[in-house]
Amino acid sequence: MDLNEQLDHIFHPRTVAVVGASASPEKVGFRVVSNLLEAGFRGRVYPVNPGLAELFGLRAYPSISAIPGEIDLAVIAIPAELTIAAVKECMAKGVKGALIISGGFSEVGTKTGASLQAELRDLASKGGTKILGPNTQGLVNPRLHLTASFQSTLSLLKAGNVAVVTQSGGLCIYIAHALSNHNVGISMAMGLGNRCGLDFEEVITYLAQDDETRVIAIYVEGLEQPKSLMRVAREVVKRKPIVAYKGGRGEGIDRATLSHTGALAGRYELYKAAFAQAGMITADNLTDMIDAIKALAFQPPSLGKRVAIFSVQAGPAIIMADKCHEYGLTLAQFPPALKQRLKQLGSPLNAIDNPVDVGWKSDEFNDCREMLRAVLEEDGVDGIVVGAVFLGSNMGLMRAVIDVAKDYKKPITVCLDSPHGTASAEITALEESGIPTYPLPERAVTGLAALVKYGEIIRGDGGGGIRTHGPSTEGQRFSRPSP
Amino acid sequence: MDLNEQLDHIFHPRTVAVVGASASPEKVGFRVVSNLLEAGFRGRVYPVNPGLAELFGLRAYPSISAIPGEIDLAVIAIPAELTIAAVKECMAKGVKGALIISGGFSEVGTKTGASLQAELRDLASKGGTKILGPNTQGLVNPRLHLTASFQSTLSLLKAGNVAVVTQSGGLCIYIAHALSNHNVGISMAMGLGNRCGLDFEEVITYLAQDDETRVIAIYVEGLEQPKSLMRVAREVVKRKPIVAYKGGRGEGIDRATLSHTGALAGRYELYKAAFAQAGMITADNLTDMIDAIKALAFQPPSLGKRVAIFSVQAGPAIIMADKCHEYGLTLAQFPPALKQRLKQLGSPLNAIDNPVDVGWKSDEFNDCREMLRAVLEEDGVDGIVVGAVFLGSNMGLMRAVIDVAKDYKKPITVCLDSPHGTASAEITALEESGIPTYPLPERAVTGLAALVKYGEIIRGDGGGGIRTHGPSTEGQRFSRPSP
Repeated sequence: MDLNEQLDHIFHPRTVAVVGASASPEKVGFRVVSNLLEAGFRGRVYPVNPGLAELFGLRAYPSISAIPGEIDLAVIAIPAELTIAAVKECMAKGVKGALIISGGFSEVGTKTGASLQAELRDLASKGGTKILGPNTQGLVNPRLHLTASFQSTLSLLKAGNVAVVTQSGGLCIYIAHALSNHNVGISMAMGLGNRCGLDFEEVITYLAQDDETRVIAIYVEGLEQPKSLMRVAREVVKRKPIVAYKGGRGEGIDRATLSHTGALAGRYELYKAAFAQAGMITADNLTDMIDAIKALAFQPPSLGKRVAIFSVQAGPAIIMADKCHEYGLTLAQFPPALKQRLKQLGSPLNAIDNPVDVGWKSDEFNDCREMLRAVLEEDGVDGIVVGAVFLGSNMGLMRAVIDVAKDYKKPITVCLDSPHGTASAEITALEESGIPTYPLPERAVTGLAALVKYGEIIRGDGGGGIRTHGPSTEGQRFSRPSP
Repeated sequence: MDLNEQLDHIFHPRTVAVVGASASPEKVGFRVVSNLLEAGFRGRVYPVNPGLAELFGLRAYPSISAIPGEIDLAVIAIPAELTIAAVKECMAKGVKGALIISGGFSEVGTKTGASLQAELRDLASKGGTKILGPNTQGLVNPRLHLTASFQSTLSLLKAGNVAVVTQSGGLCIYIAHALSNHNVGISMAMGLGNRCGLDFEEVITYLAQDDETRVIAIYVEGLEQPKSLMRVAREVVKRKPIVAYKGGRGEGIDRATLSHTGALAGRYELYKAAFAQAGMITADNLTDMIDAIKALAFQPPSLGKRVAIFSVQAGPAIIMADKCHEYGLTLAQFPPALKQRLKQLGSPLNAIDNPVDVGWKSDEFNDCREMLRAVLEEDGVDGIVVGAVFLGSNMGLMRAVIDVAKDYKKPITVCLDSPHGTASAEITALEESGIPTYPLPERAVTGLAALVKYGEIIRGDGGGGIRTHGPSTEGQRFSRPSP
């Protein structure tokens, strides 16, 4: 069985054992079993604890070896000093993967912790059972209703196409929730913790060929061998975008990173340069990260950086133009014929250059559609960003965006702001048609900039077949480079 | 009547006339009357239109002069070429303020537009009726249920303590909605439009003495006389923070700003330096602007920049430390006695230095409270930022924050993330106690950094009495420098 096949068993388990399963609600082993069941996991769950006969109506087993049949994933939630024996038992049993939630290894900074971690690494190097962790919050696969974690809220994640792989479990939770709250679904989310077995390279190699994953998001604190991640990433980004966030940036915070997942953080600028060279899209903050991922999950990469701005109000157009400038995008120059066409379609009070001031025409579906078409037909335009505050009368423009987007392979992002919830039907309609929306004008530009960036990354590698932008159906909404 | 008294009539009107009131739903004059009524404005509304006998059951008047009694605010929504006569009528009648929504002035770039604008300016300079606009979306005062605007969603704004004053109407809507969506209430929101009469200087001078306003947010595109705003701001910031956003930053976008509110945008760096020198807090993007305003609306300014971080997870602590570094805040150095105390209170697996790793103790209300108290008592700590992902078991920490915050004058901001809505009760409890919450760890630091910045700004002016942090009641929740 090759590694990808083994990881497939671990990330899509049919059978999960929980070592340290407990009937005491304050125990991690209680929460893991309870979360697995409450999330509705359809595979088999085996509580393991020599002191238990059953838990939540499930038969409990005294040990891993006592379980009949194959085990894809063993979740280990017992004190650190007991984990070595448990992993050995997993290996003997032929368990595919051991997810070690337990802390108490190199991250605590003690001699005992370091020595336990060395033992784990040693076991991991022997092959067989693949170790995920230790010191991780767990693994989630929303499509399978798999919440192999003590964090119950992870069961609420929306299923989708973005994989979240983080060094810190806390960041996994933040990023996955923030994505889900922005209507971006998750294919898989995991914290790698101390990375004694599975590391970024192996996981992203797997994700590159995982059909359910379109975008890979990683959070990195510090790496022992950054070059091996970069080497793998350089290949993976030809097939799927990787959006990377580096934590542990300043000098003053090495104390914090040192005592976390056990790796000393490196200087931010070095990492950032290396990430960029490997073709990863780096985000300076989590908001940008979410915005970039959302666009990449919804829209095709851009063929170039010449942007047209459509705005119902002039102020937001200015802000979007500012942000384009900041990202190195250019405002497309409209030729006279296009300006003439826009003049015919627009209202006399509106500006007809780029930014296109939709203004009083924003409720005229036909005029908006023709304005959008005229601009999308223009060879000198690579993508469009649309900005509107929510108002019944802007919905002609929004319906027009939905109508034209499916006929063109140029990316479109939309800012549609509203008081809490009032535009939710319109936002849903846009997003179900594959158009990502953002609550602030700047953020819609961040999304478009990520699509421009990813287009540049693929072209830099000579990748073809990028713009096969299919019809607006769930599975084919996005352009996707073929392997 | 001095200007502040006149503005008080305009911003808190008892009587509003709508010139151009219309029975046709697509007309701005229809929307303004309809919004005033639907928002529940309790003053009198007078539709003005010679062709109407009544509108929505209200008697309509053929002209401003035909209305009996005093008019505080006339909203003018008629074609540009008719506005001059309407304003003259307002002046003859002694109307306090004319809010001109109509466009078609210098922003359209025509000779007629420029000449109409010159006429308006000329009228404005004569005194009497104060002109707001033209080319603005209007004026909102949520406390009075006043929505003098064609934008109906503005009626949904939460009432509160932040005044939003913008050059662009669109940005007024974006910023006010974003604040309201982040549970920050609005005392007043207005677009100044082409600023023929009222300009930033006059409005912020008024707001400085307005009891309902605690924080002033301004959006500026370009000013003819930036120095006069800076001169006024320098005084106002001694009493209230001003958070400023500059739109129209790049060279390539002068086209867009030029054709907007009629003022050429200046270079960003120059504005930013001038704003800072005047003691305004500048925000590079709208998300930062919202986050800074939220902290300033909820918490007292900080006496210094030495921050303690409390986090349930190590990863978010690292990110918060990164962000502190970026803002020039320092991680407070804990003396040995404090470390010793935290060691007693914390769990053996947790780090007891700064960042304080609350970890497995996060559900222990008493321990969390004592850890927070120990840190807040420390002279070398000026403020605290707390980070947690939502989980039932983190709520001990959150209850402890609420419990201790009222006893100290040091600012606290909290990141509490959750899948959509699940932590809403906890977030409400924190915010009702005056603790601002943020969905991402970085953003909680942006809030704290604004409080540090504002503390520096006030101390630079020798202002005293800043730390009079009262008990947690609605009116006294915040520290507020006395005038």
